[in-house]
Amino acid sequence: METIVLKFGGSSTADNIKLNIVANKIIDFYNKKNKVIVVVSAQGKTTDNLIKEAKELSYEPDKREMDVLLSTGEQMSSSKLAILLNRLGYNAVSLTGWQAGIYTSNINEEAKIEYINTERIKQELDNGNIVIIAGFQGINDKKDITTLGRGGSDTTAVAVAAAMKADHCYIFSDVDGVYSTDPNKITDAKKIEELSYDEMLDLSNEGAKVLHNRCVEIAQKFNVLIETGSTFNNNFGTQINNKIEESAVKSIVKNDNLFLITLKYENYNADMLNKLYFTLLNNGIIPTNMINNSINSFNVSFTIKSADLGKFQELLGDELKDFTSSFTNISRISLVGYGIMNNENIIKKTLELLNINSVDIFSMQLEECKLSIMTKEKVNNKLLEQLHHELIV
Amino acid sequence: METIVLKFGGSSTADNIKLNIVANKIIDFYNKKNKVIVVVSAQGKTTDNLIKEAKELSYEPDKREMDVLLSTGEQMSSSKLAILLNRLGYNAVSLTGWQAGIYTSNINEEAKIEYINTERIKQELDNGNIVIIAGFQGINDKKDITTLGRGGSDTTAVAVAAAMKADHCYIFSDVDGVYSTDPNKITDAKKIEELSYDEMLDLSNEGAKVLHNRCVEIAQKFNVLIETGSTFNNNFGTQINNKIEESAVKSIVKNDNLFLITLKYENYNADMLNKLYFTLLNNGIIPTNMINNSINSFNVSFTIKSADLGKFQELLGDELKDFTSSFTNISRISLVGYGIMNNENIIKKTLELLNINSVDIFSMQLEECKLSIMTKEKVNNKLLEQLHHELIV
Repeated sequence: METIVLKFGGSSTADNIKLNIVANKIIDFYNKKNKVIVVVSAQGKTTDNLIKEAKELSYEPDKREMDVLLSTGEQMSSSKLAILLNRLGYNAVSLTGWQAGIYTSNINEEAKIEYINTERIKQELDNGNIVIIAGFQGINDKKDITTLGRGGSDTTAVAVAAAMKADHCYIFSDVDGVYSTDPNKITDAKKIEELSYDEMLDLSNEGAKVLHNRCVEIAQKFNVLIETGSTFNNNFGTQINNKIEESAVKSIVKNDNLFLITLKYENYNADMLNKLYFTLLNNGIIPTNMINNSINSFNVSFTIKSADLGKFQELLGDELKDFTSSFTNISRISLVGYGIMNNENIIKKTLELLNINSVDIFSMQLEECKLSIMTKEKVNNKLLEQLHHELIV
Repeated sequence: METIVLKFGGSSTADNIKLNIVANKIIDFYNKKNKVIVVVSAQGKTTDNLIKEAKELSYEPDKREMDVLLSTGEQMSSSKLAILLNRLGYNAVSLTGWQAGIYTSNINEEAKIEYINTERIKQELDNGNIVIIAGFQGINDKKDITTLGRGGSDTTAVAVAAAMKADHCYIFSDVDGVYSTDPNKITDAKKIEELSYDEMLDLSNEGAKVLHNRCVEIAQKFNVLIETGSTFNNNFGTQINNKIEESAVKSIVKNDNLFLITLKYENYNADMLNKLYFTLLNNGIIPTNMINNSINSFNVSFTIKSADLGKFQELLGDELKDFTSSFTNISRISLVGYGIMNNENIIKKTLELLNINSVDIFSMQLEECKLSIMTKEKVNNKLLEQLHHELIV
């Protein structure tokens, strides 16, 4: 008898027809004499709608209360799935984050799982129940409800799999795995069979939406093998594991949702950079690729997500008002795969193609598993297609 | 500094405009140096919609899971209200049933509050917070979420008021109090200033929708003075207290949602009535006014709510299939007020009016505070108006 964890995202549970498909997938696993733990996200647009409703009440809703509000989304989907499974003749019991013993840090909206008390989960499994856990949520040491941030249900699933020493951890969504590039843009894109944790981390940090990066970190730490797959077919998905691979580009990701910011100030003061950094972090803006060109005057560039631009512009009118600023929408193309750093051929071909396409490089970073290039303008899909054609084996 | 409990129903919090009115009412109380505890119902049609969604998944949804699902309604409204109060500059914190320490019996969908651990509520009040409690819910000793049945938020409010030894317990809704009869039907209906617990219990048992009867029972047991009022005006409402009143009819209630059932069977067997009673109770049907006319053959009449008719008809095709049955939609008119039993004048006038209107009486019950008459047909509003005119002082 194996213990398995199945995670279903919001697009897999959006309506009753889909919920029935999910239920049948769960029953298949249960009927093979498995102990089945299911982790669910909120249905479809539930979370977005709750955020919208809260924003109608407050421009900046209290974070503790947002967690109370948003956690209802997964509480609803988990109980509905249990209702459906019970109706189909299978004993199922839903557990909220606190009932499932998921203890987190104190940071509302971005809590981290610290510990899982698996007593209740084990007790329900021993009673023959399918256990449906509300993903994305837990409680802190004050017994306040917390949430794990966007995509946090992936993290719940992997953390539960680690705590339960599960034999399998499947992450189901509406795509059947990780692709060599965006299949909606490049028709040649192909499904990747295996990825290492490091490769997957690089991909998710670069914006691939298949897995939440925190979940990959936990999987790596506790050596949980993740199997991704589609809710809606039985194709093999992508495995995320610890295998060492031959050097190759596995996937190419383009991220257009970035702004390059430049801040200037007449005088240079060594403390200024520090202050700038903390002002950004305190407002939830993480500057990536910060470049300090200051000599006599302060001159610093960095990139932020498009989503943070509004907040950043507010800061320019307030705490950062002494700086002269400019910003422009840029692209970052990242090639991810084990051993890229030491593969001259990959780097050469990439630079060649950028040159042919007259792409102006702003910065280039080379890491063990990643070559990441930032361009001064947005990059079109044609270049992405050429890179994919030349570099993906 | 007084401790006060304010309860707002679903029609008072149905949209953002109403939620703002509620917030301002709360702030008024808080600014008068009160410790303020608020109990909220789910917004508008939330509970009905969740029930509808569950019924789409299962004809008879698992009760444990229904409680998990339905309790999200109050969790959403309590967090939204806290978000709004925080935005308006007042510290407010929402608490779910389990966070507020509300421990109940094990019966899902109809749990009873057994004990309130007020530690967390007191701690939040001591920190200067307005405490918003999600009504209608608690946890049982297995740490499963339970709900208190329809109207259960009233019960939460009164139980919290009792446990906190609150100085005031206000129940706000979209009407400003209890009326001498339905003001939508009889224009002469007038607001009642004071009612005793017994009178209020009789009224709510007869279908007056102002207060949940379980809440009145708890108020009586712990001597909590209840003040009802409208969310949308500042008129004085009705007080429910322990005062002994002079003998008088306070209110007249008509209930048309009743069916009179007659069951017959050729042979009479003393055990049959017992079995019938348990079959009904096991299916959630409470027979009121059961009359056993059996001598040689079994011949029993009783009334059930219209809402239970469908389920009863199913039983007639199944467990009760050996009986010959008939049913008809009837009315019950109840006159409620202290001392009615010993007030000949009231009884005489009532019977006179029924006679003039050629109303066929099926049964009549006389209790300390109530005269209740069941008629063989539905009763029209004209009779109700005449009774009100003659009997309400």
